[in-house]
Parts: sequence; C-alpha cells; structure tokens
Amino acid sequence: MTDPVNPAMRATFPPPVMEARRWLDGVAFTRNKPLINVSQAAPVEAPPDPLLEALAQTVLDTPQAHLYGPVLGLPALRAEVASQWSTAYGGKITETQVAITAGCNQAFAASIATLAGAGDDIIIPTPWYFNHKMWLDMQGINTIPLPTGTHMLPDPEFAASLITDHTRAIVLVTPNNPTGAEYPAGLLRAFYDLAKRHGIALIVDETYRDFDSRQGAPHDLFHDPDWADTLIQLYSFSKAYRLTGHRVGAVVASQSRLSEVEKFLDTVAICPNQLGQHAALWGMRNLSQWLAGERAEILSRRGAILAGFGALEKQGWTLLGCGAYFAYVEHPFPTPSDQLAQNLVRDAAVLLLPGTMFMPESDTSGQHQLRIAFANIDSSGISLLFDRLKAIMA
Amino acid sequence: MTDPVNPAMRATFPPPVMEARRWLDGVAFTRNKPLINVSQAAPVEAPPDPLLEALAQTVLDTPQAHLYGPVLGLPALRAEVASQWSTAYGGKITETQVAITAGCNQAFAASIATLAGAGDDIIIPTPWYFNHKMWLDMQGINTIPLPTGTHMLPDPEFAASLITDHTRAIVLVTPNNPTGAEYPAGLLRAFYDLAKRHGIALIVDETYRDFDSRQGAPHDLFHDPDWADTLIQLYSFSKAYRLTGHRVGAVVASQSRLSEVEKFLDTVAICPNQLGQHAALWGMRNLSQWLAGERAEILSRRGAILAGFGALEKQGWTLLGCGAYFAYVEHPFPTPSDQLAQNLVRDAAVLLLPGTMFMPESDTSGQHQLRIAFANIDSSGISLLFDRLKAIMA
Repeated sequence: MTDPVNPAMRATFPPPVMEARRWLDGVAFTRNKPLINVSQAAPVEAPPDPLLEALAQTVLDTPQAHLYGPVLGLPALRAEVASQWSTAYGGKITETQVAITAGCNQAFAASIATLAGAGDDIIIPTPWYFNHKMWLDMQGINTIPLPTGTHMLPDPEFAASLITDHTRAIVLVTPNNPTGAEYPAGLLRAFYDLAKRHGIALIVDETYRDFDSRQGAPHDLFHDPDWADTLIQLYSFSKAYRLTGHRVGAVVASQSRLSEVEKFLDTVAICPNQLGQHAALWGMRNLSQWLAGERAEILSRRGAILAGFGALEKQGWTLLGCGAYFAYVEHPFPTPSDQLAQNLVRDAAVLLLPGTMFMPESDTSGQHQLRIAFANIDSSGISLLFDRLKAIMA
Repeated sequence: MTDPVNPAMRATFPPPVMEARRWLDGVAFTRNKPLINVSQAAPVEAPPDPLLEALAQTVLDTPQAHLYGPVLGLPALRAEVASQWSTAYGGKITETQVAITAGCNQAFAASIATLAGAGDDIIIPTPWYFNHKMWLDMQGINTIPLPTGTHMLPDPEFAASLITDHTRAIVLVTPNNPTGAEYPAGLLRAFYDLAKRHGIALIVDETYRDFDSRQGAPHDLFHDPDWADTLIQLYSFSKAYRLTGHRVGAVVASQSRLSEVEKFLDTVAICPNQLGQHAALWGMRNLSQWLAGERAEILSRRGAILAGFGALEKQGWTLLGCGAYFAYVEHPFPTPSDQLAQNLVRDAAVLLLPGTMFMPESDTSGQHQLRIAFANIDSSGISLLFDRLKAIMA
C-alpha cells in the first residue's frame, strides 16, 4: 500500500474539539441528568430574527452575494471595520488595513504565512489555543512556549529572554482562550514595545473582545501612528453575532502585509463566502444594542462562575482565570485532567476540556487544570454545573 | 521600520486574476464597445430561483445552518457525493472518503498539506493553474513542470523521467484549466499506474467535470478497489450550481488521509460554511436536469469557439485546446502575450489572460499563448469577440 504522508502532519495532534466529541460516543444521558456541554466556545442559538430576515432577503435579491467577490473581502465590510475600530481604539485604521477572512483561524494562518516558514520560531503564552499550535506544527514552525504566571498573565521580560534570530512574532490572545484572562492595557503595551524593539511582529487575537468585562478600549496600541509596522490584530464576527457557521473573521495589519495575505487567501479560499460577509456587515450596522445585551448576559454568567468557584475553594478548587467565554480552573483530584475529563462525561454528564489540551506535554501543570466554556449555559445551567462538580467530592 | 516577511511569500506572484482586474483601471469603455470579460472562469448570474428560495427558507428555519458544523462537512452532503459518485464512476466511494472544503482551492491546499512539506517535489503539467503554483511556492514545495505536447496532453513517460525520491504527487486537471483539454481515460489510467508503481499520489482535479463534452465517466480509476491508496480527487460545486461566492468544494480520498485533511481544515477553516453546503446539497438533489441544460449551452458555446478559430486559422491563430470553460490559443503577433493582453483591454475592449501567467518564466511558449474563458459569454458575445480579434489584424 502506498499512502505517503507529510511527516509534519503526522507530528501534530487531531482537532481536540472533535476528539472530545468522540468521548460522548456510547454514553447514554438521562432526562433527569442531561449533558452539560461546556467544551466549545460557540453560541448554540441562531442569530437574532432581524438578521435572519435581512439575510434571507439578500439571498433572494442580491445576485452578487452568490458570486466571487474580492479576495480581501467586501469593501463595505472592510470600511465598516476600519471606521468602527478607529473610533473604538482611538487610532487611525484605514479600509486598506483591513482584510476579511473565513473565520479567525484563517486570519491566524494567513498572518503566520506572511511572517514565518519552516524552522522559524513563534512565541505563545501557555496554556495556548490548540489550533494555533496545530497550525504552527503543520507548517514546520517551532512554537516557543511562554509559561504564564499569576492571573495567567505572560511576562514581557521572560518573553524577551526567549527571543532569538529565529523569532518572527509573539502571539497574544485577549481575552484569552483558554484562560479567560483579560490582559491589562499596560501589559499589551509592554509586549508591543518589546516586539517593536526586536523588529518582530505582535499578533493580538481579539476574538472575544466584545465580551471583555472592562469598559472602553482594551489597549492603546493603535495610538502609535506606526502601529502597522508591528501590530497584527485578529478578530472574529462569529461570537458577536452568532455567525460561527458562516466563517467570517478579520485581520487588521499594514497594507503591504495584506498584499501578502492576499496571496495566501487567494489560494486557500479565493474569497470569504459572500453571504456571511453580508450578515456580519448587517450585524455591525444594526446589532450594537443587541450585542450590548448579549455582553451583559455573559458578564452575569461570569459573575455566577466567580461566585460558584469562590464557594468551591475550600474543597480544593482554584479559579485561575475567568473572562469572556471561559473559566480556567485547577481541580483538587489526583487523576490527570485528560482522564478526569473523560470520567466527568460518564459520571457527571459534563463535557469540558482538560488543561493538557492547551499545553506542551513537557508542562505537567495542565494535568491539574480544566477549561470551562461557560458562555453557552444560562444561570440555571451554571447552578446545575456546580451541583455536579460538588457531587464529585462526595 | 520593522516589517518581517516570510521569504517564501515574497517568492510567489500576486493573484493573477486580481492583477488582470487592475488592467481595467482608468480604461473607459463605450456603450458601443463594452468590455468583453473572458478572464475568469466564473458564472456571472445567480443560481436558479428555486435554489435561492430553498436557501432563503434554510436561513429562516434551520438554526443549525448558522452554527459550527463538523470539520469535514455536512454528513448528508458527504453521503450524497459518495452515492452519486459511486454511480457515475462505477466504483465504491463511501461517505467517510469524502470531505467538504471551502472551495476546490482549499481542497488542493489541504491535500498537498497531507503529502508534502518544504523541499519536496510535486509534478504538474504546464501550462498550469496558477493558484496551484502559488500554493506550492508559499509552502516551500518545488513545482516540477511537465510540458505538454500535442492537444495539450501530458506524457506519462516524460513524467516518469521526472520522478525522484523527493516526488510526492502528480497533479492533473481535467477538463484542464487553462487549456480546456479533456484528458482521455487511458491517459489518466497510465498516470494512475505510474503513481501507484512509484508509491506517490495522483491528484485529479475535476472542477470542470460537469461540462466535459464526452458522455459517461471520464475515467475508470475508481474501478480499482484500492483506488484510495493512490488517488485524490478534487471537485467544486461552484461551477455546476453557480455557487462561486459560497465556497464549496470536495476532496475524495482515503479515510486515513482525510483524518490528516481534518487537521488542516480545522485550523484554516474550522468547518466549511453551512449555508453553502445546504445550497450544494439542494443542487445535487434537485438540479440535475437544469445542470444538463447548462452543460448543453456551454457545449454550444464551445462549438462556436471551435468554428470561430477554424476561420481565424489562415490569419495565423491556432486553437491549442478547447473544452469546459476554456479555449487556449496561440496568437500570431510578435508582441509577448502579457503585453498583448494589456493592449487588448485598451484597443479591443477584451480582457483575457496571457499564457505567461500559466508558465514558469523559463518556458517562453507562454508568450505566444492566451486563455479565453468563453463560458461566460453567449453566442452573440462570442461572435462579437471574433469580430474584435479579426479587427486586430487590420
């Protein structure tokens, strides 16, 4: 049999979310104890009706929405992002500095393609977002882990010690996946200055920005008139407008970098799908009030999570980080988290992801940690979740 | 200024279709002589109304169509492809051997990722589809050109002489882009046997299969019960159902290879957009009659192209290949084709692509060649096109 496979593909792991889904195979959940799924950061309901109605109308009356569009996205959507961003971040961002992608993962892949090839280094705080690690593995790029400290925050001085001639970028995710940590503006500024000083890029993935608990701009990096020489910002429309199935994200970067991004996107996508872009544009123009309500709801869930783990502290649980969609916790059991997570499906009807999925194998701290994507469950679901976590102690 | 760029990105060229569009900048076309755009293989009208109505309904009544789906695509669409393919090709193709991608370019990128990394070789007949070349460049993979001979067909013996320890696959596109050549079944079989003998993969891109002028299956490769050890077939739903803006394609390959494809797609797409998949599925189930009519119309346009170039032969034009969406021709002028193509915009109000875009620079035959994507213009448009080509002679 002939079945040649690129060794770089074999070297990375299968998609963790799909692996976790397979843990459900053959497990029967009862009506009295249905599954609580806190494994994936994804809305579980359709977008609001007015968006659906607008989109159905677009399907019927906009022929162009079914045909190829520009590689870097709909000009109107690029302009809308540029305009709203300039206001929100207090800087100057032009339409030509915005590219639309088929989701934020693609925004990451495209940005990395412009920066690094096989043998280069990218620095990422741990725990990391596993899809970032997978993409770098498949590209033959070395992921340099930057272990985080108190409150799951990375240290710029520690990062500085990891920079070599092979380093092409530092990647930060804030609010963070998996920890939920909201990076302080001053910390982002310190990383920005570090990257600028070393002539490398700073990628800031703000997929969860719309659910940050803080008021106002989360950083001032766009204040630097030369931000585009150093900063690459990533965004997703998926969470804000419940458009996960439409695949729409964005890269904000220099125009010259976006002309390199254009090559990558042309060959891997040709263009983002048109209907999803129309949906995102409609959302940006019409759903800011609705989105404020969504944010308030998720912040109230966050409050319930903070309170719940406060009460569990004396039983040995520690809340390491909490924000946007995620709580990241240390559990009190001797069982390693990857085994514990599978046990929880069977014993507690809870699906969550173990810390080991977000760590290099050499870092054993992941064995004590769990990620809970709480944004998908309402306050009664959260209350039920804590009942079940408490019951494990018994 | 710090602006680090991956040298492999700088090494490839910008998207040719976007470059050609820029030739239109600043050129005014008159009402008496509007632009004839035969540069891109893309439907210019929306899908048929019944599909639009079904899709608008899906937008309104299927919440799941707005949310994440499986990485490898909707099970129903995978099953539909497997079933229709098994019948059409007379072989056994299972649902687990079909993956849905965000377009056929992504199908190519994902397949290549599973096969080859930086420093490996992929053999592709020239003229080639430029996006294949771009993707390989960006991945640091060497594209080994296999010049075609009579009727633009590649020679398996010549290909055999190019295979080394670094070779991972041969890529064939049939009906071909850019030449329109329909590869005979026996030729595909010879390439398949060659690939199998050398333990490398044969990628067959059948994006244009629905417009092949021949009746029945275009090859018998799926008759081999072990086809999945050697063959990787690529497909696009874009042309058949006018869904270019929805980005839906497919890879047909072994289940083990698709588990590697899943890693790539998870990080670059998460999943194909859901609405596009629903549209493709509806098309497969309901539009076979309509598609037969589309094919007949394109074949009649092909007939008009064959006749038109027959008449132009004595003026020095040679039709090198003609099929599906494309005619590939040799022009009689001393001007190199990349300059000629730009002159034609201004002088003849015709936008087409020069052969140089489909060739390595070292192969100068492209300077005498032009690609005409005729599927987008009706018989009166084709007649007008020939009037303008004749006028250049004057």
